[in-house]
Amino acid sequence: MKINSLSEITHLIQNELSQFNKSFRQSLKSNVALVELVTRYFLKQKGKKVRPVLVLFSSKLAGEVNERSYRGATLVELLHTATLVHDDVVDNAETRRGFPSINAVWKNKVAVLMGDYLLARGLMLAVDGNDFDFLKVITNTVKRMSEGELLQISKTRKLDNDEETYFRIISDKTASLLTTCCEIGARAATSDEKKILALKNYGENLGIAFQIRDDILDYIGTTKLFGKPLGGDIKEKKLTLPLIYALKNSSSDQSKHIIKQIKNGGKKLVVKDVVDFVQKNGGIYFAEKVSREYAQKAKESLAVFENSEYKSALESLVQFVVERNT
Amino acid sequence: MKINSLSEITHLIQNELSQFNKSFRQSLKSNVALVELVTRYFLKQKGKKVRPVLVLFSSKLAGEVNERSYRGATLVELLHTATLVHDDVVDNAETRRGFPSINAVWKNKVAVLMGDYLLARGLMLAVDGNDFDFLKVITNTVKRMSEGELLQISKTRKLDNDEETYFRIISDKTASLLTTCCEIGARAATSDEKKILALKNYGENLGIAFQIRDDILDYIGTTKLFGKPLGGDIKEKKLTLPLIYALKNSSSDQSKHIIKQIKNGGKKLVVKDVVDFVQKNGGIYFAEKVSREYAQKAKESLAVFENSEYKSALESLVQFVVERNT
Repeated sequence: MKINSLSEITHLIQNELSQFNKSFRQSLKSNVALVELVTRYFLKQKGKKVRPVLVLFSSKLAGEVNERSYRGATLVELLHTATLVHDDVVDNAETRRGFPSINAVWKNKVAVLMGDYLLARGLMLAVDGNDFDFLKVITNTVKRMSEGELLQISKTRKLDNDEETYFRIISDKTASLLTTCCEIGARAATSDEKKILALKNYGENLGIAFQIRDDILDYIGTTKLFGKPLGGDIKEKKLTLPLIYALKNSSSDQSKHIIKQIKNGGKKLVVKDVVDFVQKNGGIYFAEKVSREYAQKAKESLAVFENSEYKSALESLVQFVVERNT
Repeated sequence: MKINSLSEITHLIQNELSQFNKSFRQSLKSNVALVELVTRYFLKQKGKKVRPVLVLFSSKLAGEVNERSYRGATLVELLHTATLVHDDVVDNAETRRGFPSINAVWKNKVAVLMGDYLLARGLMLAVDGNDFDFLKVITNTVKRMSEGELLQISKTRKLDNDEETYFRIISDKTASLLTTCCEIGARAATSDEKKILALKNYGENLGIAFQIRDDILDYIGTTKLFGKPLGGDIKEKKLTLPLIYALKNSSSDQSKHIIKQIKNGGKKLVVKDVVDFVQKNGGIYFAEKVSREYAQKAKESLAVFENSEYKSALESLVQFVVERNT
């Protein structure tokens, strides 16, 4: 089934999502006024809640949504929110989902501390629920996410990213959390390691496909209303799959010229030149092909499960991810 | 026993400390080059390792130092390092222990991510060791520390701190981690809840005494070679115990005048005027008295333990903390 928006599949778990929302809001209560203030501010923004959706669908597919599923969904959303708040410092982001970022409004101080606070709240949920298995998974994920971002930063400085390192980076910084969502949802509902592994593989492949698509969107389409602006990665000197491929498949002179342009940056950097270079040397085509391959692998990972509307929903989600234009 | 430097007591656990150092260095290994680079940079700085020292002495007092003690000591030092790295962003600190801060050298990006990474590494140690009790304690501590800092920031903005809130702030932001060190050290060595509680109380009272002394040092003595500069809190509009007391115990006109000076800040703010005001209105005297009371309570908390060189060491540590001039 082809879908055009997430709501076409999330209606299947509407009750579960509203239960999750209650639990999420509950977890954000604090008796420090400033914490409440900042929290209310980002609760207004309403993200897509992709991660809780993954947890809940994974539980549905592996068994039933239960108390542990809700705790898991709340935990991953708290962790995700924490990383968004920290990313705002990291990226010096001025906006997030169209709103001014926490950082711009509250300054770095509050953003760093709020991120730490949210992470701790998430972990405390798992501790209080005796979900030792969740803690094992989630602490490793936090490590991988920060390590992945740090690896990306060091490659960005040197402008020497290659395909192997690119995949390591996106697996760590993006796919790891999506994998964790699926694993936690599965573990909440079953102890069948085959099912758990299947959902983990789904999450990992979905995550890779998702990030490649994200990186492609930096090169195609019009300037977006939300999300990162066209050519943002190029300006930030991030070498992602389309560019890495194009550099490898063009003449040495051409690729040296492009690298030099990106390195120098500033006003002399014409984003359109880099986009044309990538397009002409098959970078977009290649990245789209790879992204679809991962999407296919994600779907195949679900083979162990019998057909159901939940399985179809997860399949549609993958398709949506690799075809989206925003 | 009066001591003039920490080394006068740490020689008692010299072997244990070098074992800890090995374990700490081991925990910092990473296959991401940038992580290793930043890590090597702050390993050179050699802090006083007060927190691991507390863990190890607590284990000694409650039983024996064992594997769990070392994991606990490494965990708290990783967490402490993470908060220092994040604090550097928070405070826009340019130096730390006389070295340029991670933030100044590596920029906020890397500092935020390294802090997250270090925290995750610490938690993973506890997860891998199945120390569920440590995780319970430490996640709550991370929450309290960030909440305490956030409360302090909001009070700093409004310049309306009172004694009750001051104690809540310093208990959360400073004493909580020292309490945790003692609790973890104790839990590693015993399951006797009376002994564990005694060491927790010791840590809490030590922490409060420590922070009050820290706040007093902002008002007395000469400009320090290391640590925060004299009058730093005043310039940052932080109302700490000496000033809170002085404001309450002076005429309404006087205190309004001082508050106005601090609020306006900038070149018109004469730190010496505020220091004189606090001195004249008994703020230093009062804070020293309170600090000594907490020190006394810390020592009394150890009453359940038989006399030993380790108990004497912890008593000396308290005395050292409230009498230090740097």
